[in-house]
Amino acid sequence: MSTVSRLLSICRPGGIRPYCVTFSQPPDVKGTVSSVQVTINRTMASASSEKILTIENLNPCIKVMEYAVRGPLVIRATEIEKELEKGVKKPFKDVIRANIGDCHAMGQKPITFFRQVLSLVLNQALFDDPKITDDVKERARTILCGTRGCSMGSYTDSSGIEVIRQHVAKYIQERDGGIPSDPDNIILSTGASGAIKNLLALFHSSINGKNSGVMVPIPQYPLYSASIAEFDLKQVDYYLDESKKWGLDIAELERAVNEARKVCVPRVLVVINPGNPTGQVLTRKNIEEIIKFAYKERLFIFADEVYQDNIYDKDSQFHSFKKVLVEMGEPYSKMEMASFMSVSKGYMGECGIRGGYAEIMNMAPDVKAMLLKAISAQLCSSTIGQAAIDCVVNAPKPGEPSYELFIKEKTNVLQSLKRRAEMVTKTFNSFEGFSCNPVMGAMYAFPQFKLPPKAIEAAKKAGQKPDAFYAFQLLERTGICIVPGSGFGQKEGTYHFRTTILPQEEDLKKMLSMFDNFHKEFMSQYK
Amino acid sequence: MSTVSRLLSICRPGGIRPYCVTFSQPPDVKGTVSSVQVTINRTMASASSEKILTIENLNPCIKVMEYAVRGPLVIRATEIEKELEKGVKKPFKDVIRANIGDCHAMGQKPITFFRQVLSLVLNQALFDDPKITDDVKERARTILCGTRGCSMGSYTDSSGIEVIRQHVAKYIQERDGGIPSDPDNIILSTGASGAIKNLLALFHSSINGKNSGVMVPIPQYPLYSASIAEFDLKQVDYYLDESKKWGLDIAELERAVNEARKVCVPRVLVVINPGNPTGQVLTRKNIEEIIKFAYKERLFIFADEVYQDNIYDKDSQFHSFKKVLVEMGEPYSKMEMASFMSVSKGYMGECGIRGGYAEIMNMAPDVKAMLLKAISAQLCSSTIGQAAIDCVVNAPKPGEPSYELFIKEKTNVLQSLKRRAEMVTKTFNSFEGFSCNPVMGAMYAFPQFKLPPKAIEAAKKAGQKPDAFYAFQLLERTGICIVPGSGFGQKEGTYHFRTTILPQEEDLKKMLSMFDNFHKEFMSQYK
Repeated sequence: MSTVSRLLSICRPGGIRPYCVTFSQPPDVKGTVSSVQVTINRTMASASSEKILTIENLNPCIKVMEYAVRGPLVIRATEIEKELEKGVKKPFKDVIRANIGDCHAMGQKPITFFRQVLSLVLNQALFDDPKITDDVKERARTILCGTRGCSMGSYTDSSGIEVIRQHVAKYIQERDGGIPSDPDNIILSTGASGAIKNLLALFHSSINGKNSGVMVPIPQYPLYSASIAEFDLKQVDYYLDESKKWGLDIAELERAVNEARKVCVPRVLVVINPGNPTGQVLTRKNIEEIIKFAYKERLFIFADEVYQDNIYDKDSQFHSFKKVLVEMGEPYSKMEMASFMSVSKGYMGECGIRGGYAEIMNMAPDVKAMLLKAISAQLCSSTIGQAAIDCVVNAPKPGEPSYELFIKEKTNVLQSLKRRAEMVTKTFNSFEGFSCNPVMGAMYAFPQFKLPPKAIEAAKKAGQKPDAFYAFQLLERTGICIVPGSGFGQKEGTYHFRTTILPQEEDLKKMLSMFDNFHKEFMSQYK
Repeated sequence: MSTVSRLLSICRPGGIRPYCVTFSQPPDVKGTVSSVQVTINRTMASASSEKILTIENLNPCIKVMEYAVRGPLVIRATEIEKELEKGVKKPFKDVIRANIGDCHAMGQKPITFFRQVLSLVLNQALFDDPKITDDVKERARTILCGTRGCSMGSYTDSSGIEVIRQHVAKYIQERDGGIPSDPDNIILSTGASGAIKNLLALFHSSINGKNSGVMVPIPQYPLYSASIAEFDLKQVDYYLDESKKWGLDIAELERAVNEARKVCVPRVLVVINPGNPTGQVLTRKNIEEIIKFAYKERLFIFADEVYQDNIYDKDSQFHSFKKVLVEMGEPYSKMEMASFMSVSKGYMGECGIRGGYAEIMNMAPDVKAMLLKAISAQLCSSTIGQAAIDCVVNAPKPGEPSYELFIKEKTNVLQSLKRRAEMVTKTFNSFEGFSCNPVMGAMYAFPQFKLPPKAIEAAKKAGQKPDAFYAFQLLERTGICIVPGSGFGQKEGTYHFRTTILPQEEDLKKMLSMFDNFHKEFMSQYK
């Protein structure tokens, strides 16, 4: 990839470290108003309320929502990058953004086949390029033929290009050992997030005066807490069992749902498998129990399965909720559920392309019509995002010209991630006061760490939660940006953080070594 | 463009007519429940309410929303396409989708420069292609250097890649005769729709027990009515004056706001300029009056300016709200407003790419922080959409290798649209009972037509609104798909429809001729 290296050196002379663009983002402002009853009186107004749209009369759901993955630590990380650029001396040269699952930003190379197909559908002159192989041209042609006017510039149906939805269905069917998948149940979306938000929005309603409840694992991926707040739903926490490798215990689900019924009507159960931020992989038996629980309690299952390709534990394998549910037979096979997938994760890491899909099972036809109507006002998801999904579900097959390179690139990424998962787990477990469950899947470690009383005292003085205090100290002293456990949820009195395992292997080694030094220093400072 | 023709003939042997993918979409279901109080009792439940998510307990805002541009007529159009494919005999060969502003679907060719840049940022091997000119490579390099890890596969800041926001600001500044634009006021978005929805969502709140009101022109683009319903806002209609070329009369704004204050707190004024579906272009004097009105009534201005390149009337020109507002000086220059732009319209027509931006003026910093937080949970808009916006705002300049072809392609599209605008206006005005204001800008005609009493009677019998009845008859007999005026709003007792002017010139001539024949037949049938 000489071109890439050359480009990178053009972008940032002197290295191929991930380039981090500088930008300014305003400070995070937290609001806690739950209902807004404001009188606007122009003559009496203060300077601030001279504005038509003020923090007082803003959508209260947006005020309370939080999204830790891009929270105050990330804002500070960006400031530090700007300081470094201005020549401010720091004990480190670069900020390492281990806060977000952004593979390419951390140096992962795109899959060649994907990029060839995407460039071809956009630029049809390349069909004449003899360097581009026939399988790439065939894929691109099929996608273009699925668009109106043979252009990626035309709108698609709201649920996405039909031929791509057919390929998705075929892919799911093959993944699930032949269990049928219907293209009409597939919605192509703006990453998985777009589909998750569209589906969650359906549940915003008052039932017997109570809000709808959404059960989410704790720790959870903050897209859920943010969207639940945005749609005025009630978050129902169920705790994963850290002592059992972040296992999902049915008794805990029972406790959570029973408690929740006092204040809301639980209607959705979110399961993230493999887990984010916790990296566990559910067993088939566990999935069966969860399905039975959801059936008994009348919960619509959201199976967040975006990390289905990211399994590193040799004794684990991915079981899709859909497959298990169908194989359990009636009445379970008739249950309403949605499964979400993305091009952002797996071995692809194409986050910026914003492609994803949902498979929606057993939804009432009139409700599905409403869902399609709601997404039609967003017109359609990006055609390039849709084409990227096609590359995933219709990847090169043995014998095709692109196969050899494709399988090599894919395998390299996944094997390297497996090594990194093991390296991170092992290293954190060697730190004083740390315990880290194995990263069985996904892209994150979520270690627990003990803090000395003096550190907790210092955090209090700084007006920060102890885990945030620790993370800020790490950032200021090493440039490593992680997300405190409080952004994902953790048991009262415990401290965690999430770090990705995404820096390339040599970079990750350096990062963990810096982290080690920092931790020793921190512990001796506050012992 | 031999490659394109070849591809098109591969896609659909025998022609370069726009290819329309077939798909199935469920029927439109209309709900009118304004609040949901449903008891779920499993034992008593009917088959339908065995479902967890039912039409009864669905988000009531989604139930009431409508999006006519993709409504029942479009669903029927799709069915007809499927019938044609199966060989069902019809008096026409193709459905003509004149319902949606989808340029490429109607045969418009993409701008070569844009597609070269987009293919290059995705596939860096093309940097070695000698056929790609240096200005294209320079643009692509700049965009890539603005991403993390030098890849379009990485997430960007929520507001978009900084260097592209800088280019947008520079473009606006040049457009507006040097009035400064701040990149920190620019948010790159998923088409203009994404930004409009994000901004509207901020206003969902109850003030003194009343909902926030959003003033929209009637006729309006249904994205507004749909999003207003979705966010539980109150739609405040103000009527454009058809007898004055769809002019915007301040007395009508006054009437509308005064009436609205009885039931809501009006906080937003939406102005679409050039108008969709009405095609008018506002004069500078009119814009000044509107700004004064918005100031007096304390309204946040939403200037939907996505058709700013689409002006065909020789006596009209585009004045941006931002320029007028700033030039009016204080207090107007301190007003809160947002302007929206898209890659989907203009001469680009890149709808499927989903790129757009908003420029946001004078928003309170704490509110802006909330807006950025809200969009951060959607991570970022598509990097390719962002790159497409860069192509628009940083187009080839005189002297650059791509300039000549670029300006030729751009001019051809805009001149052809101008001819089509005139052709459509002239033709409709020759129809019995039709009157059509000139299409001064945008991409649509919105003629009024009189229906004979017998036709109105027939519509009643068919259970349809008279304009929908007419549109369905047109579709069934000619394959031409338009949107009835009721989808946009019209004065009680008047009938209109919206058609795009987007079929290529020869196709448009044929379409108008078929339309003419249909109309004569229809009028004689119901006279």
